[in-house]
Amino acid sequence: MASAEFWYEFASTYSYPAALRVASLAEERGVSVAWRPFLLGPIFAAQGWRDSPFNIYPAKGRYMWRDMQRTCDAMGVSLKRPEPFPQSSLLAARIALALEGDRRSNFSRRVYIAEFGQGLPIADRPTLAALLTRCGVDPVATLERAESDTNKALLKAECARAAEIGVVGAPCLVTEDGEVFWGNDRLEQGLDWAARRRARVSP
Amino acid sequence: MASAEFWYEFASTYSYPAALRVASLAEERGVSVAWRPFLLGPIFAAQGWRDSPFNIYPAKGRYMWRDMQRTCDAMGVSLKRPEPFPQSSLLAARIALALEGDRRSNFSRRVYIAEFGQGLPIADRPTLAALLTRCGVDPVATLERAESDTNKALLKAECARAAEIGVVGAPCLVTEDGEVFWGNDRLEQGLDWAARRRARVSP
Repeated sequence: MASAEFWYEFASTYSYPAALRVASLAEERGVSVAWRPFLLGPIFAAQGWRDSPFNIYPAKGRYMWRDMQRTCDAMGVSLKRPEPFPQSSLLAARIALALEGDRRSNFSRRVYIAEFGQGLPIADRPTLAALLTRCGVDPVATLERAESDTNKALLKAECARAAEIGVVGAPCLVTEDGEVFWGNDRLEQGLDWAARRRARVSP
Repeated sequence: MASAEFWYEFASTYSYPAALRVASLAEERGVSVAWRPFLLGPIFAAQGWRDSPFNIYPAKGRYMWRDMQRTCDAMGVSLKRPEPFPQSSLLAARIALALEGDRRSNFSRRVYIAEFGQGLPIADRPTLAALLTRCGVDPVATLERAESDTNKALLKAECARAAEIGVVGAPCLVTEDGEVFWGNDRLEQGLDWAARRRARVSP
């Protein structure tokens, strides 16, 4: 089966519609998707940014929120800006990484819906623990695993890996042959690429 | 008839495929398009950038060239990076603004094909004069008009107008009701919007 990686960051607005779309788009194309949570902070810091570029460049921020509104309207999903924006995504990313398979993608979608669909804060333990409970996952054990030194180190390694393979923003779809497709609006193209590549290399 | 504005900058890579695509996409939807050449320089300067963001942020530059290659491959058009990048687009923009209607769009497409299809410099008078000749336009009279004080002032006013209406990059498709769609990958969405809006307001 063809496969691709879906790199996402919980503070990233465009990762919200992408997280809601990627599973069905991948299924239509026969592509299996590995969900890879990471943090844009280190990548932005390397570019000299200490805040979201949508805050540093207000005209781009205004454009992005309007573009997001049109995108969400077209999908029939709600959009509500959380305050502050961006939300701290560190704990959510650690938790997502501590989960596996469907649990990871289910939890991640719930975080995005809470954050950008309902405008709720997603930085604190009680909020994230409640989302874990709704996923049918034990919040205490999961938070413990999420905050273990091993898991913290794993998230750091994932961030380094993202930079290394050319992930320049979020979301990114990365194919087995190393092509990077950046943006919610590149999901279809990236998944098509993954499916076509598989067709070429299959016996 | 529905209408929209196509704002483009000759130094902008993504304006190249957009300039080749916009006329037929607009025709399919019954939308008439006004070509609006402008300069990103003043808009970038307001964000503290003195160079292309694709040069300031090398990882984004690498991504952009690979993404452009995929885009051009899918369209079946060639891509060749001009040196230096970005090219100075001032004179080309002044000339485009001094032309009207089909002459402006024809000249503009020829500039993009020379610059990004063939990797030729587009900053100097002889190159641009040759392109004008191939458009069937008198180069001497056109260059004189392009470099008149009136036309220079008009281009400045166009740049100010672009910033005012929320043009944050190039290309942008701007609809009659003021929606801005940024990027080659938003052309279809912007033209669909323009066509739908017209359907709503028509008697």
